[in-house]
Amino acid sequence: MMLPTASKKETSAGAGWGRVETRSFQLPKPHRLRGGAVLAEPVVAYETYGKLSPGKDNAVLICHALSGDAHVAGFHAGEDKPGWWDRMIGPGRAFDTDRFFVVCSNVLGGCRGSTGPASLDPATGKPYGLKFPLVTIADMVDVQKRLIDFLGIKKLLAVAGGSMGGMQVLQWGVSYPESVAALIPIAAAARHTALQIAFNEVGRQAVMSDPDWRGGDYYGRKAPARGLALARMVGHITYLSEKSMERKFGRLRRRKANGRGFTEEFEVEGYLRFKGGHFVKRFDANTYLYLTRAIDHFDLSAERPLVEVFRALSRHRLLAIAFSSDWLYPPVQSKEIVKAAKLNGADVTYCEITADYGHDAFLLEDVEQSRVISRFLEVTYRKNT
Amino acid sequence: MMLPTASKKETSAGAGWGRVETRSFQLPKPHRLRGGAVLAEPVVAYETYGKLSPGKDNAVLICHALSGDAHVAGFHAGEDKPGWWDRMIGPGRAFDTDRFFVVCSNVLGGCRGSTGPASLDPATGKPYGLKFPLVTIADMVDVQKRLIDFLGIKKLLAVAGGSMGGMQVLQWGVSYPESVAALIPIAAAARHTALQIAFNEVGRQAVMSDPDWRGGDYYGRKAPARGLALARMVGHITYLSEKSMERKFGRLRRRKANGRGFTEEFEVEGYLRFKGGHFVKRFDANTYLYLTRAIDHFDLSAERPLVEVFRALSRHRLLAIAFSSDWLYPPVQSKEIVKAAKLNGADVTYCEITADYGHDAFLLEDVEQSRVISRFLEVTYRKNT
Repeated sequence: MMLPTASKKETSAGAGWGRVETRSFQLPKPHRLRGGAVLAEPVVAYETYGKLSPGKDNAVLICHALSGDAHVAGFHAGEDKPGWWDRMIGPGRAFDTDRFFVVCSNVLGGCRGSTGPASLDPATGKPYGLKFPLVTIADMVDVQKRLIDFLGIKKLLAVAGGSMGGMQVLQWGVSYPESVAALIPIAAAARHTALQIAFNEVGRQAVMSDPDWRGGDYYGRKAPARGLALARMVGHITYLSEKSMERKFGRLRRRKANGRGFTEEFEVEGYLRFKGGHFVKRFDANTYLYLTRAIDHFDLSAERPLVEVFRALSRHRLLAIAFSSDWLYPPVQSKEIVKAAKLNGADVTYCEITADYGHDAFLLEDVEQSRVISRFLEVTYRKNT
Repeated sequence: MMLPTASKKETSAGAGWGRVETRSFQLPKPHRLRGGAVLAEPVVAYETYGKLSPGKDNAVLICHALSGDAHVAGFHAGEDKPGWWDRMIGPGRAFDTDRFFVVCSNVLGGCRGSTGPASLDPATGKPYGLKFPLVTIADMVDVQKRLIDFLGIKKLLAVAGGSMGGMQVLQWGVSYPESVAALIPIAAAARHTALQIAFNEVGRQAVMSDPDWRGGDYYGRKAPARGLALARMVGHITYLSEKSMERKFGRLRRRKANGRGFTEEFEVEGYLRFKGGHFVKRFDANTYLYLTRAIDHFDLSAERPLVEVFRALSRHRLLAIAFSSDWLYPPVQSKEIVKAAKLNGADVTYCEITADYGHDAFLLEDVEQSRVISRFLEVTYRKNT
């Protein structure tokens, strides 16, 4: 099959998608999690961009990171801020919507439309809170697979995502190798380390130390905003690099700083406070606990070496992208993925992009990422159709 | 003058100091801080080890880090845990108390015997709380100078310290170059960066987000223990290295972990919780705010290049020690100090020790540190007497 012709409005940077709506898919039957718990009526929020080809062979699934959601590109009605990876998705962009059918869904346990701890428990009619069962990356992927089935897609051309999204990408290769042709894990890891767990734990402790958290039972009351903001502040430090912080803030003082007391005096403090305060408006504190725990539990090599876990990937294509200044999920962790896939005969490409943004580079660097992903998808499409 | 003969009990590792008491020195007159505020009756807690020589030329001042105190070595009555740098101080040890007179004092603003926010304000008879004036590294050093004057020491043979202690060492060289012959900054920086400020800010926000903090006015009530513990947890992550955490904890589970919910499940989580909980028993939350702020304000090159700031060091000896895995105060910051001192003609030695402990290496690595410091002090003594 031929690739659809590129849109005439394509430019080097491509064009934005425009208006989009989040839709909901309710699983047709109760869903059993890997840990044994059953969710009676789980819902998945998702968005799609482009058209599914008649052969249904041009679908790409995007998996989001900790704080992301289904709104990966385009604009919601009445909003002037596009989706979280808008620069990568649209006509002529890396995930070219003139060629590919792009799907993104909010993860299970999330708080942006998919069932999570803030959802109503059908058994009680009240929000789950901590009664919501623990979810794993594998559970998130299982639910995505139901959505993909519902959309009539037998085999995804590719699954792509950064950070926690990259973990889902790898899990797709392990859970459903027959249902995906190519994997694009970005700034990812096959196994969460002690340092990574430690940062997540501090974030959780910040949430749970907030008296407003009330054991997770705060819905309808004041949310644990200070604790969640604090967790986000810690997270933000780990998403940046020393170099980017130094260049962006250095020791710059805030204009209104009086130099006394313990209010924000340095620009970097104001930035962290702003980021923390902004986050709590759109994110649920319990979801923060559940998703960070899912990340901490992620360890593909827990029971056997990664090379054995990836055994089914012998005919897959894999593009691992890492960023030079990412110290939270450093390139060495991407190289472990690359090695294990390569040893199984997979068609592997590794691309380490030099960027100063730290871990956040997967969201911010779009020039080289676009080129390498665009080319990778083109070849993948040609080889698989 | 000859070096005092080494003690017969000297071994390769040297011997411990034994019993020691913390003493108090009250400044004979009101003390004006650099910012203009006046403290009426400031007190400095200090300890000494060894004997001041008749020529008073064998005195070494040790400066402590954020969570340290005057109790650098030996044992307090009834306690079985020695001072925080005991392995480095004693007969035959790096700071050989058979040869040198070692002094260590709790910093101004501290909570371990020196005047700080938990002290009684003579004007009101109540604890200062946030009425305590902001202190700087230079203020800490000014008060140390008063103590050294009181002890009858005209010129220190050396000033040594790690982390915040290393900043005090550098400040000694800038504030009182005539009163010190040699400087030993360890895992130090001449200027706090955006990343370093950011981590401190998260710690402060953790303290101030605790409702028990009450604007700093919690004395006689419940202390903001959860916030301070959280701050310490963040700090501890930055004191370790990824490698040391991976080797020490990896993904080990706690024996009692049930794998459900959000209690400590991983060993690294239990460790952080323990460290946080332990810290609040001995440390004042307001002091945490004041000292981290003093550190953030530290920037020797704020007004002119470091090489100009160090102009008076042309005849000094300087030993800068850094640790390979220290990502909080990385070796590059020590090299900046080395370069600026060297350009002024100072007799500079730089020693980067390969150790996996991260920033905490300055407290934990004693084999190579001992050798390089011991030798440096010996030569310094020979050249200065």
